[in-house]
Amino acid sequence: MTPEISNKMASLHGSMIRELFKLGADPSVISFGGGNPSAETFPVKEIEEIAAKVLTDNPVSVLQYGLTEGYTPLRDTLKKYLAEKEGFDFNKNELFIVSGGQQGADLTTKVLVNEGDVVLTEEPAFVGCLNTFRSYGAKLVGIPMQQDGMDTAALESTLAKLSEAGEKVRFLYTIPSFQNPTGITTTESKRQEVYRIAKEYDIMILEDNPYGELRFAGKNVPTIKSMDTDGRVLYCGSFSKTMAPAFRIGFLVFDKSLTSPLNVAKQCTDVHSNVLFQYICNEYMTKYDWNAHLENSRKVYRHKASLMLENMKLHFHPDVTFGSPEGGLFVMAFLPGGMDSYPFVREAINRGVLCVPGSAFLADPAGHSNGFRLNYSSPTDEKIVKGIEILGKLTYEWIEKH
Amino acid sequence: MTPEISNKMASLHGSMIRELFKLGADPSVISFGGGNPSAETFPVKEIEEIAAKVLTDNPVSVLQYGLTEGYTPLRDTLKKYLAEKEGFDFNKNELFIVSGGQQGADLTTKVLVNEGDVVLTEEPAFVGCLNTFRSYGAKLVGIPMQQDGMDTAALESTLAKLSEAGEKVRFLYTIPSFQNPTGITTTESKRQEVYRIAKEYDIMILEDNPYGELRFAGKNVPTIKSMDTDGRVLYCGSFSKTMAPAFRIGFLVFDKSLTSPLNVAKQCTDVHSNVLFQYICNEYMTKYDWNAHLENSRKVYRHKASLMLENMKLHFHPDVTFGSPEGGLFVMAFLPGGMDSYPFVREAINRGVLCVPGSAFLADPAGHSNGFRLNYSSPTDEKIVKGIEILGKLTYEWIEKH
Repeated sequence: MTPEISNKMASLHGSMIRELFKLGADPSVISFGGGNPSAETFPVKEIEEIAAKVLTDNPVSVLQYGLTEGYTPLRDTLKKYLAEKEGFDFNKNELFIVSGGQQGADLTTKVLVNEGDVVLTEEPAFVGCLNTFRSYGAKLVGIPMQQDGMDTAALESTLAKLSEAGEKVRFLYTIPSFQNPTGITTTESKRQEVYRIAKEYDIMILEDNPYGELRFAGKNVPTIKSMDTDGRVLYCGSFSKTMAPAFRIGFLVFDKSLTSPLNVAKQCTDVHSNVLFQYICNEYMTKYDWNAHLENSRKVYRHKASLMLENMKLHFHPDVTFGSPEGGLFVMAFLPGGMDSYPFVREAINRGVLCVPGSAFLADPAGHSNGFRLNYSSPTDEKIVKGIEILGKLTYEWIEKH
Repeated sequence: MTPEISNKMASLHGSMIRELFKLGADPSVISFGGGNPSAETFPVKEIEEIAAKVLTDNPVSVLQYGLTEGYTPLRDTLKKYLAEKEGFDFNKNELFIVSGGQQGADLTTKVLVNEGDVVLTEEPAFVGCLNTFRSYGAKLVGIPMQQDGMDTAALESTLAKLSEAGEKVRFLYTIPSFQNPTGITTTESKRQEVYRIAKEYDIMILEDNPYGELRFAGKNVPTIKSMDTDGRVLYCGSFSKTMAPAFRIGFLVFDKSLTSPLNVAKQCTDVHSNVLFQYICNEYMTKYDWNAHLENSRKVYRHKASLMLENMKLHFHPDVTFGSPEGGLFVMAFLPGGMDSYPFVREAINRGVLCVPGSAFLADPAGHSNGFRLNYSSPTDEKIVKGIEILGKLTYEWIEKH
């Protein structure tokens, strides 16, 4: 028999990036394709120390079934931290531990979206979450990114049109800080504007902030969640880039009215998240120097981003444009307008350098993009220099030929 | 604003058991309510040993992003093990690592079920998975359990009726070995009959086998998956009861045609499962004495089950019936026909003993049941003896009064 696939999954294809990730495992390829944090930022010694101690002193506490909403001491630590740092109000909000930021998006969609509802996304946007929304049968509508964040005029006119067409818009998905894939940070005034428009059209916002702790330049910008006066914003954070991705530990902050449905959704999905790593996150945040650790990670990324950007300025054809990310793991470069980056990226791979075509990040998977995403966090310095030189050479050939 | 909840989640309530689990944390309560494996079965020393070694020798290998389908060496080990032990054919089948057995059910439902499709379940059945099916908008139809497994005549007549009514039945959910909540093991001939009927009506089967390794009495019965000649059976296993639940590691075996959609579904949900614990499972299965470890766990459960059953025979009113599980963690007792167990369980809780009313496990959440589930794996011997005595006394009072 050939099993019939559900409508929502039948048309959905795997993330191009997860597939490239496999190509990138070939050691002869220079990969700017993945989104791995730099392994040198993992607090390996401390993880080992904390794990060894609890597995000796109190193993059952981290091996038996845990609570669906998460390990209570970690939830308390995060609430305190986010109240102080971001001004979140935990009289009105609740916080759950989730299995990585991805599950934050998964549970949010399960709880809020009916098949056929619209989810608005930045365009380009993180493809992993686009696929999550698609997997619940959401219709995706993209709002173009500008250098200072989403095009809020387009957001407003799109909402007006959708409203007129009788479409049900459930939420707007945004990564306001060091966006994946563009590296762009939305300005404070645009964040306020986004919130105002969401309020006007009565839609929710899913603010995804996996890179927020990795600001290595510029000034801090308040989160949209910190502007939220009426429980409209769900805020998702992650330990994937601050501790280690294989922990699969993230957190979701949301209005208390969503506590029960999110609890049930989490029960239905994986019962609870890994307890040992929740324990390690809490011990590390409370008994070690969390800020010094983050500062060290920022230093690593500041260096790697500078190195890549300097070499891009040096080697890329002057008609290729790109911004200057203030944090996170990515920068996106753009071929001259109208050029599709997909064949360019294929040729780059032929020459041994992996990056991701912008089309992978579009709401419409058949769309075209002149952008290509470069990751600077995982390659070594030598590979950054060599890979950008190869890509730079290709930009000259490509632009002359096309 | 009061966020609007998606249709499929709005009517769904949390697992009564997860809520009871919280009550059971009160040390003065004797809890037969949860489903925790016995902590004395966790191979604590070896987990500690393996974790310490890999976190010292090769930490990045277990901390960086991993593959969606799972840690390759563990997948290979499990394929070899299941091919030898259960006769699975991995030329035709594939195996993914999932975040606990619960995620096996979640991904299966995401990939196979459209809203409004029917999922058939044993009645009573594991409520965690019933809620998973509900969370995708499936309509649940229960097939009554008998002492030797599901009522196959009812299965056939129900399928005939549903087919006539034009209902789309996607799959049958079953725990054939040491079922949760009843403790019943489906006989080999009934398994063959279930498979034959599934084939006749062209439906899939989700065979959930979290307790399969915990047989402490009677003879092994082949899995339904081992009878599967046409790729109709998805088989789900778990390390929650053989290693430790907080690992959140399980596995799903399925026809190769489902590889791509299940991969995408897993990407969308949590990207991949925790790598360290996948590594520990593989090391433990390949470098330690897996069979001796399982034999030790079986010994623990054999003792605990015997103790509970002996005391039930001694103390329960003779009109209360129950079977004799050959493995797993549970036994279900039944008040005389027609009696609802819910008020009985409420009164038991008043007297300091927690168990779960059968109504928690029904396809129709408003239904009634005369059964109540008892877990013997987590309470101490002393609590088993004392708790069953209290319950026994209550059965006499209850039956005389009602």
